[in-house]
Amino acid sequence: MNLANLPTRVKLIDVGPRDGLQNEKTPVPADVKISLVQRLQDAGLQEIEVTSYVSPKWVPQMADNHAVMQGIARRSGVRYSVLTPNLQGYEASVQDRPDEIVVFGAASEAFSQKNINCSIAESIERFAPVVAAARAAGIAVRGAMSCTVGCPYEGEIAPERVAYLAGLMRGIGVQRVDVADTIGVGTPRKVQRAIEAALQHYAIDEVSGHFHDTYGQALVNTLAALELGVWNFQSSVAGLGGCPYAKGATGNVATEDLVYLLHGMGIDTGIDLDKLIDAGVYISDFLGRKSASRVAVAVLNKRAG
Amino acid sequence: MNLANLPTRVKLIDVGPRDGLQNEKTPVPADVKISLVQRLQDAGLQEIEVTSYVSPKWVPQMADNHAVMQGIARRSGVRYSVLTPNLQGYEASVQDRPDEIVVFGAASEAFSQKNINCSIAESIERFAPVVAAARAAGIAVRGAMSCTVGCPYEGEIAPERVAYLAGLMRGIGVQRVDVADTIGVGTPRKVQRAIEAALQHYAIDEVSGHFHDTYGQALVNTLAALELGVWNFQSSVAGLGGCPYAKGATGNVATEDLVYLLHGMGIDTGIDLDKLIDAGVYISDFLGRKSASRVAVAVLNKRAG
Repeated sequence: MNLANLPTRVKLIDVGPRDGLQNEKTPVPADVKISLVQRLQDAGLQEIEVTSYVSPKWVPQMADNHAVMQGIARRSGVRYSVLTPNLQGYEASVQDRPDEIVVFGAASEAFSQKNINCSIAESIERFAPVVAAARAAGIAVRGAMSCTVGCPYEGEIAPERVAYLAGLMRGIGVQRVDVADTIGVGTPRKVQRAIEAALQHYAIDEVSGHFHDTYGQALVNTLAALELGVWNFQSSVAGLGGCPYAKGATGNVATEDLVYLLHGMGIDTGIDLDKLIDAGVYISDFLGRKSASRVAVAVLNKRAG
Repeated sequence: MNLANLPTRVKLIDVGPRDGLQNEKTPVPADVKISLVQRLQDAGLQEIEVTSYVSPKWVPQMADNHAVMQGIARRSGVRYSVLTPNLQGYEASVQDRPDEIVVFGAASEAFSQKNINCSIAESIERFAPVVAAARAAGIAVRGAMSCTVGCPYEGEIAPERVAYLAGLMRGIGVQRVDVADTIGVGTPRKVQRAIEAALQHYAIDEVSGHFHDTYGQALVNTLAALELGVWNFQSSVAGLGGCPYAKGATGNVATEDLVYLLHGMGIDTGIDLDKLIDAGVYISDFLGRKSASRVAVAVLNKRAG
């Protein structure tokens, strides 16, 4: 029998309030975001990506970052992270006392150029002072590595590119990294190779998987990552956050679907699936749409009889 | 690295024309079904479940079984199977020369009682003469085992019940069996236990996996089955066939999603994914709905630019 040596416990990082809502056209008021964070921590989430400190010109949805961070009722044992794209963003975030900041880089040069208008190496240079400042202030630093399997411009990404990016991240003091399949094209063997590349520079406890469900492969890729020992994963309640590179397609894997898989395999998450589904219903209702979580849809159908 | 010992080749059985369309309310004319079978074989499918010989009172959608079976342009090397729920159905099918007939049983007593109004043992007794007649006529026999992981009435199903059913199937001469997760509640370890139970009576080449995507777990369960060496799987083009026990929820896993997973892992299926997507578009357009295949949706978005 396989699957014998999977982790017995998994930690999920819900990125719904930040990564999920970021590209939403419907403006979501701060009090709704605060309530969503509350519902997520009530459901047992121990890590929540709350907001982003970017120019409101670029991402108007995150203009209320201070209000949201100051409005949430922090719970001890829960880690609240925020995205800080530059030193200015980092400095703006400090007053809100994030537990962790997130910096980012792409494993694809073309994506880096098109997305943030500089090379991978340049992007890391720009983040170096942000990381140094955060670490000096005792704030943890996570590095989001995008396009680690495929890129909308370059196609498949070689694992060597992931290792290169992970090495640069390690070099500037980033403490842990996400291996993200940003466009959801990955399948298990490719995802394992990307993770193994990250493992050249980070320990297994420092690597998290971030899979998109655009091609329906997020859970199978999660199992592939679990088999390597990865036990930190990112997901988004109700599957919030479509993929901007594939119109109408699913983006982030739904936290509910991941929890169902893990609990079904006897892996502990500390999360109450029913409360999590309710949190997803809350934000989906606000946005006026059906949840992108298959588990939520199936459970709600069942509840309705 | 795990995943090293997966099968290098997988055979997919598309059940869309029968299992998929069976519960469709929109009447699908015989010529559309014939064209769908043609498109599936053009895409490289080597096994297709074409129709069912049941009373048209119960399943009006399959009343055109003779017309469909006589209308398809058979290709050498392709296996055409049909569902025969009783001796009368089997006798009606013979004139259409199916390569294989399918009989069925549930691993859940409650499901058997509610679905076909008799016990599991009684259902097998009724099938015994059908199987004997088919084998005497040189027609292959497959046994569909439903509710092998969970049942809408009983909840979880113990692997012992699957072994019991598989033993009964073997006893009457059924040559191979499907391990079906009819309501899609399974997760990898549970699915592996159900398969291992079937393997008490059947060789690995005689067991196929049939997973429903109601909770989004079909692909991850497929990977779990592949890890045991299973290399035959059932699926439905465009994800045809909702689950009658969960309104609005997804039923059969989409063949497109399975092909994407397998090809992504370097596993050969003999199927042309683009042609398969076109076959799915054909039937989805006819039914006036969006494909339930995430891969089809993502690829069509990409094609549209």
